[in-house]
Amino acid sequence: MTATSPQVIESKVPIKSYSSCVGGRTRVKDIIGVQDQGESWIGQTVTVCGWVKTARNQKGDDGLMMFVEISDGSMLQGIQAVVFENCVGYSKAQSQLGTGASVKIVAEIVRSPAAKQVVELAVRADNSTHKIEVLGSVNSSEYPLAKKQHSREFLREIAHLRPRSNLIGAVARVRSSLAACVHDFFQHRGFLYVHTPIITAADCEGAGEMFQVSTIMAKAEKEGKSLVVDPKTGKFDYESDFFAKPSFLTVSGQLSVENYACALSDVYTFGPTFRAENSHTSRHLAEFWMIEPEIAFADIHDDMNCIEDFLKFSVQWALDKNMDDLQFFDERVEKGLINRLRAVLDGPFAKVSYTEAIEILIRDMKDKKVKFENTKVFWGMDLDSEHERYITEKVFNKPTFVYNYPKEIKAFYMRLNEDGKTVAATDCLAPGIGEVVGGSQREERLDILDARITESGLNVEDYGFYRDLRKYGSVPHAGFGVGFERLIMYITGVENIRDVIPFPRFPGHAEF
Amino acid sequence: MTATSPQVIESKVPIKSYSSCVGGRTRVKDIIGVQDQGESWIGQTVTVCGWVKTARNQKGDDGLMMFVEISDGSMLQGIQAVVFENCVGYSKAQSQLGTGASVKIVAEIVRSPAAKQVVELAVRADNSTHKIEVLGSVNSSEYPLAKKQHSREFLREIAHLRPRSNLIGAVARVRSSLAACVHDFFQHRGFLYVHTPIITAADCEGAGEMFQVSTIMAKAEKEGKSLVVDPKTGKFDYESDFFAKPSFLTVSGQLSVENYACALSDVYTFGPTFRAENSHTSRHLAEFWMIEPEIAFADIHDDMNCIEDFLKFSVQWALDKNMDDLQFFDERVEKGLINRLRAVLDGPFAKVSYTEAIEILIRDMKDKKVKFENTKVFWGMDLDSEHERYITEKVFNKPTFVYNYPKEIKAFYMRLNEDGKTVAATDCLAPGIGEVVGGSQREERLDILDARITESGLNVEDYGFYRDLRKYGSVPHAGFGVGFERLIMYITGVENIRDVIPFPRFPGHAEF
Repeated sequence: MTATSPQVIESKVPIKSYSSCVGGRTRVKDIIGVQDQGESWIGQTVTVCGWVKTARNQKGDDGLMMFVEISDGSMLQGIQAVVFENCVGYSKAQSQLGTGASVKIVAEIVRSPAAKQVVELAVRADNSTHKIEVLGSVNSSEYPLAKKQHSREFLREIAHLRPRSNLIGAVARVRSSLAACVHDFFQHRGFLYVHTPIITAADCEGAGEMFQVSTIMAKAEKEGKSLVVDPKTGKFDYESDFFAKPSFLTVSGQLSVENYACALSDVYTFGPTFRAENSHTSRHLAEFWMIEPEIAFADIHDDMNCIEDFLKFSVQWALDKNMDDLQFFDERVEKGLINRLRAVLDGPFAKVSYTEAIEILIRDMKDKKVKFENTKVFWGMDLDSEHERYITEKVFNKPTFVYNYPKEIKAFYMRLNEDGKTVAATDCLAPGIGEVVGGSQREERLDILDARITESGLNVEDYGFYRDLRKYGSVPHAGFGVGFERLIMYITGVENIRDVIPFPRFPGHAEF
Repeated sequence: MTATSPQVIESKVPIKSYSSCVGGRTRVKDIIGVQDQGESWIGQTVTVCGWVKTARNQKGDDGLMMFVEISDGSMLQGIQAVVFENCVGYSKAQSQLGTGASVKIVAEIVRSPAAKQVVELAVRADNSTHKIEVLGSVNSSEYPLAKKQHSREFLREIAHLRPRSNLIGAVARVRSSLAACVHDFFQHRGFLYVHTPIITAADCEGAGEMFQVSTIMAKAEKEGKSLVVDPKTGKFDYESDFFAKPSFLTVSGQLSVENYACALSDVYTFGPTFRAENSHTSRHLAEFWMIEPEIAFADIHDDMNCIEDFLKFSVQWALDKNMDDLQFFDERVEKGLINRLRAVLDGPFAKVSYTEAIEILIRDMKDKKVKFENTKVFWGMDLDSEHERYITEKVFNKPTFVYNYPKEIKAFYMRLNEDGKTVAATDCLAPGIGEVVGGSQREERLDILDARITESGLNVEDYGFYRDLRKYGSVPHAGFGVGFERLIMYITGVENIRDVIPFPRFPGHAEF
């Protein structure tokens, strides 16, 4: 018995040609980023706009020529323009075109004599409609990107200009593509996108490692008054603060999105989340994007199926739609990237319970198959990264679900299993990267939830709205969380999380 | 000359049937929300899960029966289940099924004798695979949604449960659909989605009506210390704050997304933005979502073309994909909604310059065609809402662009026109709602930008990164901003902005 697909009716508003929105220009990708690499465009006249990557002069049979490579960011490669002496705009182009300058070119698409490209642009002197127009010049002695190679550290310091670099441009295209992939995956499966709140004053969020959101600091500065802690409450006076109580930036949309799952069945949130951790590692940001689906009437196994489908779909999507950029990452960032990605699609992921995983680790240590730095492996411990990587890289050599963790090392809302000792939680581990996704079935039984809240040192009274979901038509449900930047790192091989988000926020850094 | 469409390669990972993610259940929408309303499902056995909308008993020829209407949120309508006496789970269902209870039903899809539906579920006593299982009961004397009709004010107080109401469920489906529409529109036109930052410490943002983000308040409370304003600087000591300087929640992604447009040509951002305005109106929120596209090499006319395409595409999308819910809004919220939406698609929008609009207003007042509350209409004024509505509703009776506003009433970054008096800004007005979208061509000339920054009382030094875009390969570019909640209000007719976002934030309210 298979379910029918949701009905998709195609829009009757035609997708107008790209040029209707953007003034008659043709994108580089639309010319050379297609199957025939531009062959079918030969003989047509186009307007191309972009920034100069390289410009050089050459003396040919017909006089002087300029070879200008132009990028408009629509794809990694630029298009080459051959600019003939005395064409319209030639002399200004001669004096002003350097790396980074912007141009508008009207030219014919012709077959290129060079091996590396099928077509190029010819800006002819004998055609009065052809031209090269310098839109914005660059003083190359000042331009931070005038030279070719730049360290990633340097690029981070010029975050406003770095999308012009090959690396950050490629990341931007893959990031945009994967965001579209997230929506495509869930929307086509009938999940509803829910915007969970960013600012929260819910008591259950707790203030640990959260950013506070306030208007009373600015007010106090304006009035030149100090903010005084009330010795009785140990708190500032929040009566005149915007929300009349302490409020914070969300650390997760899960608790909010559960409300919607318990009404609309299949939902997901995809938005920014925040941690005020004083962390300077290459894997942590203070502001990052999370994907958090929540599925009603689902258990931990449905959850693992959905995670596996989602990860495979994302990898296949990038291979289908971003191969140019992936090839660049394979050459410059991680050799073998594309093969690693293809391997993700081969066969089902492995599944192993936490208890079995611990047994395997202890057995293989005893058999001297492996030596860990942390040799204290025992049931009840949180797996270290070296243990996780051994499981996924050596034992299974494929993406691996570890599930049913001891309740003591997992959050209160995860569903207690029949054994009374473990909860229905899972981490999806992947070779070369470790944990990619974490998920769990949620505790839907009110009495057990209350016991777990208390056990965890929290107050049952702070969870009024969360408990209501268990009082009124409670349902089994499960969900998971994917750090969007971690997913991009996984798919591009880029090692530092600061390079996969446009404007990274970490301690001391919130410029641009 | 038309540009080719971007190459779209279909994924090789098949979309697995819905049930693979979610444990074999079939959605109500997939049964009765299709073209034949379920006809082709007749004879099949399905598992349906959801919440009870109504349950009643009836005595039939074959004994007692229960009629249970079940909703799973996938569409407005629920599906009717006929539960025969003595089927598996019957007696528990008898005692525990009330509005809001959750059930799992295994049943056959049969032709319905009732006129209002083509099919229904039959849970038979003579089929041992059939069953009705109560997953979670409800104490109906406690359940806030037990009764049928609820005021919107009351629903806002139970924001965690209100997606179970018809109104908020319908809004949630349309909101999700329109979010998918936004991405579909821009992605298919080759725009890249850029996540602009939420937290910003950029000097150019200014602190007026912004939320401050800080970790030093919590630190001071923990230590029991006051926060003291330095009398010299008039500021708190931010050295130990997370970002080591005052930082705030963004009010717009525009300045950030311009950086990406000036590298990748066609980009958009879609994310939360914030205003700490002490506003209690039905049209303002402290936290809301904005769509902000930015197009390089484009002028104000390209911008208006893109706005018009976008609005028509969104309206058509909702008509194609959300007709059930729109019919509900037409019946319950705004009579004539669907006709109003269809009219948006008829012919091009009107375009009128600000100067012409002022002339029309003065002329029609003089001719006694109209009487405004604010009778002081003069060139240089900001149009009041009554003037805007007269222009779009009476003069043109269709969506209308007003463009080229006096520079004094618009932002410094909008491009100065040749007349030296107006800037290339536009507001798109719509009958019945007023301003829907605002956009402008950006000032790309450094000297004029600097003069406008100074004229506006701002410091040129605070705009270093923004000015760099004009120093290094500057290009004409334009963009616009759409308040996502305003768009939903426009398309659903819902009058209060607090009802079109899952968890509204306004002064004093950040619960859930």
